[in-house]
Amino acid sequence: MFEVIGERINGLFKDIREAIKDRDPKVIQEWAIKQAEGGAAWLDINTGPIPNQEEQAEIMTWLVKTAQEVVDLPVAIDSTSVLAIEAGLQAAKGKAMINSTTAEQSKMDVLFPLAAKYNAAIVALAMNEKGVPKDCESRVALAMELVANADAYGVPMQDLYIDPLILPVNVAQDHVPEVLEALRQVKLLANPAPRTTIGLSNVSQKSPDRPLINRTFLAMAMAAGLDSAIMDANDDPLVDTAATAAVLLNQSIYCDSYVKLFRQR
Amino acid sequence: MFEVIGERINGLFKDIREAIKDRDPKVIQEWAIKQAEGGAAWLDINTGPIPNQEEQAEIMTWLVKTAQEVVDLPVAIDSTSVLAIEAGLQAAKGKAMINSTTAEQSKMDVLFPLAAKYNAAIVALAMNEKGVPKDCESRVALAMELVANADAYGVPMQDLYIDPLILPVNVAQDHVPEVLEALRQVKLLANPAPRTTIGLSNVSQKSPDRPLINRTFLAMAMAAGLDSAIMDANDDPLVDTAATAAVLLNQSIYCDSYVKLFRQR
Repeated sequence: MFEVIGERINGLFKDIREAIKDRDPKVIQEWAIKQAEGGAAWLDINTGPIPNQEEQAEIMTWLVKTAQEVVDLPVAIDSTSVLAIEAGLQAAKGKAMINSTTAEQSKMDVLFPLAAKYNAAIVALAMNEKGVPKDCESRVALAMELVANADAYGVPMQDLYIDPLILPVNVAQDHVPEVLEALRQVKLLANPAPRTTIGLSNVSQKSPDRPLINRTFLAMAMAAGLDSAIMDANDDPLVDTAATAAVLLNQSIYCDSYVKLFRQR
Repeated sequence: MFEVIGERINGLFKDIREAIKDRDPKVIQEWAIKQAEGGAAWLDINTGPIPNQEEQAEIMTWLVKTAQEVVDLPVAIDSTSVLAIEAGLQAAKGKAMINSTTAEQSKMDVLFPLAAKYNAAIVALAMNEKGVPKDCESRVALAMELVANADAYGVPMQDLYIDPLILPVNVAQDHVPEVLEALRQVKLLANPAPRTTIGLSNVSQKSPDRPLINRTFLAMAMAAGLDSAIMDANDDPLVDTAATAAVLLNQSIYCDSYVKLFRQR
């Protein structure tokens, strides 16, 4: 079943940044509840840029505990600091997710064992030190490395969320069909298949009608095999699109109130 | 490039039925212009049920000429009467389309030669005397018969519009992913590939939020290989979705005003 990963608890947003500064739980908890009501299955938690790693770890712990005080949702610990990630994993109630590793060997060698140790899911980006791949084939080749390493480190395929990386359509239009085809092929890399995810709003960066592009791409990507997305859980037409695509793919049973039920899972 | 086939000039609509009865060109021409402005690439023309074939042929001729007096668009002659179809083909300016044959041999033996004679495009439904197929495989098998017969009768693949037939999601939910997969496979049946089309609004029959289901399915189907749809050319969010999916599939070049340009082609 398709999973919405709510993107809103992120220090890059001004209200979250200020709540972090004041250690004010109110805004964090409002967004946790609002995203849960919007249909989020996971809450992404990102401190924003905090150069001091110990401070970042402390803030991550506070954010995770603050959010999970008011909602039952699992969290995705979104950071490049291993210290902050492990702090988030320790603070999290229930299943957690690491966001993210790349296919760089030095990262996989640290983050896959961490995922295995905490029985956590992990987002794995189909890129390495050379940057974002140009075409479907290079994305799938990197995904295969991620699958092989995850497997070697004991991360089961249902915990591996491969992200084929979407770039803005206004600057990298030719990447979009490559990403759709990559999603299709990634689902064939192992049995059981790895899961897939994507940072959805990236596709519409600096385009005039971003919600239209986001929801159209989401439907197309779900048809190609997208299992989850880091996205705005309070863009109602977008979540309606996810609910509808899930029904059309026969992943959830049709009933007349399926849009409402999708948010109540 | 994706083609919208405007569905509105159809005697099943009350205003069109009355315009036919009175031979009043006004309503017909208003809908022709309105659909052209909405983004239609073709105008479907259907007299509605007229049992007398000669009368139906006369009405079809009048409808085609009336519509093409005010717009430059090609017409799709939508009828089960061969007499009415040929009348429509004779009346049409420029390229025309026959809507439709099935994979029944007796129909293919009449309608493919007619398409070839008039250099017309033709919609070919993936069904036969046994009705609508249950799964992807049976749809593709019928599509293959349509491809072989079209080819034998001299209809080029770019003039063959295979319709894999979508049923309402609320009664045949398990058909939807089969239809999406059938679209993918139909595009691989020949080189150059046949085109594809679908009667879009069928997917949402008797569901509460029909426009949401229509536009979500359209995006998914375009990602699977849908080249055209018989649809409401004046459902603006639906046409916006078609324009966006065409850009995301790299079929039309991105620019900030792509939604507007899609309608001006």
